[in-house]
Amino acid sequence: MADPARGGVPDDGDIPSYYRAKRHILALCKKLGEGVALPSERLLCDQLGVARATLRQGMLQLVIEGWVDSRQGSGSFVAKRPKVSQCLCLTNESAQDGLSGRTWITFERRPAGCELAHKLCIDQNDHVIHLECVRGSDGEVLAVESAFVPTKRFPRFSRPPAQNRSLHDELKNRFKMLFGGADQRMDIVHVSPREASLLGTLPALPGLVVHRTSWDARGEPFEWVRTLYRGDRLTLVNRVGSIERGFANERHDLR
Amino acid sequence: MADPARGGVPDDGDIPSYYRAKRHILALCKKLGEGVALPSERLLCDQLGVARATLRQGMLQLVIEGWVDSRQGSGSFVAKRPKVSQCLCLTNESAQDGLSGRTWITFERRPAGCELAHKLCIDQNDHVIHLECVRGSDGEVLAVESAFVPTKRFPRFSRPPAQNRSLHDELKNRFKMLFGGADQRMDIVHVSPREASLLGTLPALPGLVVHRTSWDARGEPFEWVRTLYRGDRLTLVNRVGSIERGFANERHDLR
Repeated sequence: MADPARGGVPDDGDIPSYYRAKRHILALCKKLGEGVALPSERLLCDQLGVARATLRQGMLQLVIEGWVDSRQGSGSFVAKRPKVSQCLCLTNESAQDGLSGRTWITFERRPAGCELAHKLCIDQNDHVIHLECVRGSDGEVLAVESAFVPTKRFPRFSRPPAQNRSLHDELKNRFKMLFGGADQRMDIVHVSPREASLLGTLPALPGLVVHRTSWDARGEPFEWVRTLYRGDRLTLVNRVGSIERGFANERHDLR
Repeated sequence: MADPARGGVPDDGDIPSYYRAKRHILALCKKLGEGVALPSERLLCDQLGVARATLRQGMLQLVIEGWVDSRQGSGSFVAKRPKVSQCLCLTNESAQDGLSGRTWITFERRPAGCELAHKLCIDQNDHVIHLECVRGSDGEVLAVESAFVPTKRFPRFSRPPAQNRSLHDELKNRFKMLFGGADQRMDIVHVSPREASLLGTLPALPGLVVHRTSWDARGEPFEWVRTLYRGDRLTLVNRVGSIERGFANERHDLR
């Protein structure tokens, strides 16, 4: 990832010690390469002349940003790069989805309640099906996803999709649902204790959350989804305008 | 924002004190409403039976997530909600851009260097123009943006755009550049000391960074951009599939 302008140093040149430590360790990561062990905390503190708490602050930022892999009891290592790319496009999931692995862990019916009823344009006493899965790549769990679909719309939906099968594929193949579109919102949230245990991360780390409302080809909302992604291992990507680079698309010219 | 499944509580029911404090304060925020002062730290610690450091951990998460506005010396308040929406669509910026205000603060030429040269398909000894601006809404600074364009491509580009004018509008109107498309990547990073001073936030807060490579109608890259958004005040949004809800678009149906 590219540095901020002027290396992040303010005009008065005054930078905090944790930031100096962070930049030093980041330069080390780039030099040492993926999987290599970083020097011990004590050695780094001595080299940089900073306290252990200061060093840890810089180190934690690099863990959150996916540069350092910190394993309890065995030290810190240069993390795998680049991060896994996850496309926000949705329209050709199998081909462009960095997280092809899916394990369904929850399938339950419950009343919609006020917030979900509003999002799905149903009555708050109507029921929804809550489907939850963990998603990953190469055996690593990178996301936790909860989807809610109206029971009335899919009354014969009574068991979770097969492992690794997406909900969209299931709704299309079993219930002839045609995808129309979706609105997505991306924010920073902190991993809850339950999510930390599902993801196998440190608790309380910041992660990327995407909230999505999808509608079918007739414009009727059919799902509301909350996906929490590990920000240290994953980059969200999207493409705007012409799909093929080098291929003009007049619909997307600036007017 | 919606809660994580099972309120974030793991199956063993064991939740850390900071998380209990966080949930309590979040419920308070929803009850009290925007702009209202939260009870003092001491009162909250007494009510919850937690130490001040524990309370602060929960409170800091809510500051980062945009629920609590913490003003030094004057306590904590329920933050403005909803957050400002910033569309990732790019194609109709003036209409959908939550951050309409732009103040240009840097305009300089410099050698591209290895990384930028690669992204812009130019030689690393070629020069680029670095344009930096702060972007905001209603007088609040919410993002810092650095754009790099190849000097060779725009040799007569010698001054920054007018205040509040976008770089795309400038390139289109002054240099007849037709936008083709862009790839965007979204990650979590921490606000650097310089960015914290430009944004007026606490230093070291996590923020959302978007890196973008854009190409023109002939497919030639014309800019590389790094935008750092305040995650506490801003939500990134995008729409997939049919632009008009309720309007089928066969190109985007699932196959």
